[in-house]
Amino acid sequence: MTRWKLDDQRFFDPDPAVRQIACDLYAGVHDLPIISPHGHVDPQLLAENTPFPDPAELILIPDHYIYRMLYSRGISLESLGIPTRDGTPVERDRRRIWQIFCENLFLFQGTPTSAWLDYEFVEVFGLSRKPTGDNAQALYDELQERLARPEFLPRALYERFRIEVLCTTHGAADSLDAHHRLRQSGWNGRVIPCLRPDAAFQLDSPAWRAEIDALSAAADVDITSYGSLIVALENRRDYFRSFGATSTDQGVVSPHAHRLSPAESETIFRRALKGKADHRDAERFIAHMLMEMARMSIEDGLVMQIHPGSLRNHNRSIFARFGPDKGCDIPIRTEYTRNLRELLNTYGNDPRLTLIVFTLDESAYSRELAPLAGHYPALKLGPPWWFHDSIEGMTRFRQSVCETAGFYNTVGFNDDTRAFPSIPARHDLARRMDADFLAGKVARHIIDLDDARQIIRALTVDLVKTAYKL
Amino acid sequence: MTRWKLDDQRFFDPDPAVRQIACDLYAGVHDLPIISPHGHVDPQLLAENTPFPDPAELILIPDHYIYRMLYSRGISLESLGIPTRDGTPVERDRRRIWQIFCENLFLFQGTPTSAWLDYEFVEVFGLSRKPTGDNAQALYDELQERLARPEFLPRALYERFRIEVLCTTHGAADSLDAHHRLRQSGWNGRVIPCLRPDAAFQLDSPAWRAEIDALSAAADVDITSYGSLIVALENRRDYFRSFGATSTDQGVVSPHAHRLSPAESETIFRRALKGKADHRDAERFIAHMLMEMARMSIEDGLVMQIHPGSLRNHNRSIFARFGPDKGCDIPIRTEYTRNLRELLNTYGNDPRLTLIVFTLDESAYSRELAPLAGHYPALKLGPPWWFHDSIEGMTRFRQSVCETAGFYNTVGFNDDTRAFPSIPARHDLARRMDADFLAGKVARHIIDLDDARQIIRALTVDLVKTAYKL
Amino acid sequence: MTRWKLDDQRFFDPDPAVRQIACDLYAGVHDLPIISPHGHVDPQLLAENTPFPDPAELILIPDHYIYRMLYSRGISLESLGIPTRDGTPVERDRRRIWQIFCENLFLFQGTPTSAWLDYEFVEVFGLSRKPTGDNAQALYDELQERLARPEFLPRALYERFRIEVLCTTHGAADSLDAHHRLRQSGWNGRVIPCLRPDAAFQLDSPAWRAEIDALSAAADVDITSYGSLIVALENRRDYFRSFGATSTDQGVVSPHAHRLSPAESETIFRRALKGKADHRDAERFIAHMLMEMARMSIEDGLVMQIHPGSLRNHNRSIFARFGPDKGCDIPIRTEYTRNLRELLNTYGNDPRLTLIVFTLDESAYSRELAPLAGHYPALKLGPPWWFHDSIEGMTRFRQSVCETAGFYNTVGFNDDTRAFPSIPARHDLARRMDADFLAGKVARHIIDLDDARQIIRALTVDLVKTAYKL
Repeated sequence: MTRWKLDDQRFFDPDPAVRQIACDLYAGVHDLPIISPHGHVDPQLLAENTPFPDPAELILIPDHYIYRMLYSRGISLESLGIPTRDGTPVERDRRRIWQIFCENLFLFQGTPTSAWLDYEFVEVFGLSRKPTGDNAQALYDELQERLARPEFLPRALYERFRIEVLCTTHGAADSLDAHHRLRQSGWNGRVIPCLRPDAAFQLDSPAWRAEIDALSAAADVDITSYGSLIVALENRRDYFRSFGATSTDQGVVSPHAHRLSPAESETIFRRALKGKADHRDAERFIAHMLMEMARMSIEDGLVMQIHPGSLRNHNRSIFARFGPDKGCDIPIRTEYTRNLRELLNTYGNDPRLTLIVFTLDESAYSRELAPLAGHYPALKLGPPWWFHDSIEGMTRFRQSVCETAGFYNTVGFNDDTRAFPSIPARHDLARRMDADFLAGKVARHIIDLDDARQIIRALTVDLVKTAYKL
Repeated sequence: MTRWKLDDQRFFDPDPAVRQIACDLYAGVHDLPIISPHGHVDPQLLAENTPFPDPAELILIPDHYIYRMLYSRGISLESLGIPTRDGTPVERDRRRIWQIFCENLFLFQGTPTSAWLDYEFVEVFGLSRKPTGDNAQALYDELQERLARPEFLPRALYERFRIEVLCTTHGAADSLDAHHRLRQSGWNGRVIPCLRPDAAFQLDSPAWRAEIDALSAAADVDITSYGSLIVALENRRDYFRSFGATSTDQGVVSPHAHRLSPAESETIFRRALKGKADHRDAERFIAHMLMEMARMSIEDGLVMQIHPGSLRNHNRSIFARFGPDKGCDIPIRTEYTRNLRELLNTYGNDPRLTLIVFTLDESAYSRELAPLAGHYPALKLGPPWWFHDSIEGMTRFRQSVCETAGFYNTVGFNDDTRAFPSIPARHDLARRMDADFLAGKVARHIIDLDDARQIIRALTVDLVKTAYKL
Repeated sequence: MTRWKLDDQRFFDPDPAVRQIACDLYAGVHDLPIISPHGHVDPQLLAENTPFPDPAELILIPDHYIYRMLYSRGISLESLGIPTRDGTPVERDRRRIWQIFCENLFLFQGTPTSAWLDYEFVEVFGLSRKPTGDNAQALYDELQERLARPEFLPRALYERFRIEVLCTTHGAADSLDAHHRLRQSGWNGRVIPCLRPDAAFQLDSPAWRAEIDALSAAADVDITSYGSLIVALENRRDYFRSFGATSTDQGVVSPHAHRLSPAESETIFRRALKGKADHRDAERFIAHMLMEMARMSIEDGLVMQIHPGSLRNHNRSIFARFGPDKGCDIPIRTEYTRNLRELLNTYGNDPRLTLIVFTLDESAYSRELAPLAGHYPALKLGPPWWFHDSIEGMTRFRQSVCETAGFYNTVGFNDDTRAFPSIPARHDLARRMDADFLAGKVARHIIDLDDARQIIRALTVDLVKTAYKL
């Protein structure tokens, strides 16, 4: 049997003329470092730098992209060892979990998860064979053996992956303890935090009060009014910046931005402190905080990101047992033209603001987002997000966006992942798809080859660094 | 002149590498039987098994896909012999109708109707030439001669088409008389009904009262309350199941599902019995009946289908004269994430339910439907429907859906047709497009050729049988 | 250095089989005249027929497609010499403006603007080199030299471009003075006006009262009531028709059409005359005027166009300083099925009406517009508009529309431009994309080559002339 190998020209257009150009363009960026300006890796991993415990913990358990697909085919999350928060026991035999995973890998055929896993297995871990039900246990051994070696420790992988900067995402009350330890360790990897204060703005959430208390403690500000919340937030923004942060992020159901009067914001906030804020209060407050965060960004220079349009925890029984981020967040239609108007009119012409907007609603690409980014100086478009971070999704993004916004109002790639070993797989796929898209344009004489070489370099490194101020 | 022939490699990507793989994949499913789990053929056709009367009746008159296009170019439905319900006389000379049809066939260039018609003319009826205004009458004779032969009787065609199962769609009050006669005839074709009880749920329709009376009679239940409606429905579900039914279907404007309290459902239903239900009552009742139908499906095992988002009878003057299903149903935007949330939370984690959802709003494919199907065990995605049952439409469906939901959360093809002789044409087109799509993935090294062979087989037969419990 | 040349096969699919067919189809329409049935060229240009003053005035200053992209990268409109209406001084040195433009041309890589500019520079003005920051001043001289020659006067270009008819767009109160002078000049170019009475319908606009006064004067009707507005409008329609007009146009936020009762329309209009109409009044009045304009079209035969879904002047500070049409109009979601229902039910079955509908919301192509156009005799689909008038945009339009509506319910191309020298570039691009799209269908054996030759000819000339009654 020949050793498992990935095709060098994978994902490229089969037309020989296009493929050759794609290979050329890809070769120009293949060796460039990874800039990861947004994601969800746990920095503890790098702070502790201990071996990954086992293949299931390495691959499946932190990655809801994977287990939600198994769940959709009737495989319970308990049987996959996903930790519960209600005390329900889950499978502890990691070999059994791995077995289920390998037996069901066929479900991922044609998905980006499959492409990422193949890369991890072959390029990162050097597996000799494609996992199947039959070889699952042998490959478990093979992987386990790798994980014990020093060259598979997280920091060694970080270096092997040629990561230049890795950004991790944290709530406003987070102590950034892992970042602190990383700094003190003397290791010279650049791991920086991004501030995502959503929990402090969701006035009607049962968890809000505890978040405000934690934020009060973290900021050393007694949050008893809207005014003191703002002081605490500005304080935390400075704290994150002291750890190298260059950006914030907000996850919102709708990107509606609207400034409340000082009296309104104060009234609503005090109602929340009394536990009496309702859903409408929360919506209005979040719309207001989009304006406030833009105002702060102009003052302190942090890049502002908005990730709207995910209806979180759609499946309430999964949420009750397993908590958030378990693969049951479902996108909804998202409007930008009217919702962002006040924010863009107030701040969008200001060169000090960089606002990076994402979407899960692809119908907004050509209709709203590209025209907005092709006009407002502050606005840039984030790369295809989540379900759209895929071969077809990236193609649709470029097809829908670049004719109106150009390439230079986009910001390159985000891996946005929790799965650390998948990072190079994701960046490799993105570079290949940029090469493929540009090659198609070159072959049609729409873009010159020299220009395409510059564009792909910009998409890989330059635009990312500029947009995220790295 | 050479005989009219269809190209063996039609519809496949012109790139030689892709085309060769497509031919390989198509060859593997070309001879598989036809499983038709959802459609609108009149079972009388097979129960009676008499010759099709003439070419116009065979091709044009039952197919609103065809005559709505002629109508859009200013050709009246009366001149095409479409029966009226208001007594307006229509063209009775079938040769004149056929002449108009042949003269205007160019309007269908590039549409799936053209592909289907070509297949029917060449592969089913063996016409020697493409129809034109000039040869229309000669081809009329040619076809008429064919139709008189025993090998062109409906059952002979059914067998020649290699149909393994054909599902037909019926209202809740339907006697299924044709199915009864089919059973008694001793013919061994498998023709089964699907229950579509929409008319019984449209409380504000002028036809509702008559439907309830017919349902009362059919179910032998005096429907004088909401409770008795449920008894009658359960009764009818059993009756349909006794004829082999494995599924139900609901056509709804919106897929909003919401359970009313027992008191509310009873109040609304009684208001309807008094002729006083308004549009809002009807909407709420339909939302409630989606919940009830899901509950019943869990109990009796019938697969549940939802076809939402068609605004029926948009053109009121056509409706007044010709009735429903005359090519003037127009799609509207359709929301699934919020609308289906209650249903999926209540029943979507239950392995006993199979819910197959369709859409006419392609923007929902990647945004809502694929993420939902890629999470909830009960939910599967129906194939591209109606206007999207086409070469480009099937391509968009696969491109938008399969990266998130995979192939195995889809259910293969539905022909969904009223036009019996078009069935093999439609399945052939679907198989070709699956082959083409998968070939593109294989040529890009996204899917292995062996895996692609398994996937296309699953899409053609296995997933259909599993999803529809056939 | 070799002279700058455009590739003959540009924009065509790189697959050799497809490309060859595309070349064949394109060759068949390459030399056909330009029919420009809708656009925004200032007819003064042709009435005066004086030389274009300089390259910046020729290329950049009239084209918001260009300067909005520069603005999005932080380049002020003042520095580009865009005239202000608030007295703010702007750059007057045209060489400096040209320098900025050339230095930033890379921003347009992959956009249709880039394709159009290349054509203008090479085919219209015969530039020897691609503009860059380095050669900007030399090319300025080169262009300036050309502009002084008689063969670069507007009428000479009109003839060189082989324009057969050019339609320009005007408010209801416009005197059509330029058209008058064109007629009197004895020049035999066919330049005709299109009536766009939007300003007279926007009851809540600060500019409305002045528009009504101007309309009163132009129509010689004292507009003191709704009834007299209608008389004035009918009068203006006749006046436009006397200059060869064959069409009207309406730009609306929503295409909602609904007839008010005579009393309601009179009441609302009188409220407006008193300066008391609010936004809701304006919306209702515009919906009513869509019905009235359709009614008038049936009576006088003018083709009706609707361009909906642009939220004009999104950026209020740009609007305040520079006025409308400055690249800050942003599309919004647009609904057609319900909004056009009353209009289509009332007038859409009438063969005397031609209604051409456009969209900036591509999700409506396959969902709403193609099904509507594939049914109603009066309805035709306008070509991809504005941001979608591009290589990818035209491809998506054909892919989404033609399987349902066919080719013959579309109306060919509109250049829709203010930039006179870009006209042949835009028509050439459109012909190439039609050739490319059809070639793909021919190579897949979906359309016969002979049929494709007829279709592309129809799209280039015949359908345009028929739809616009030219």
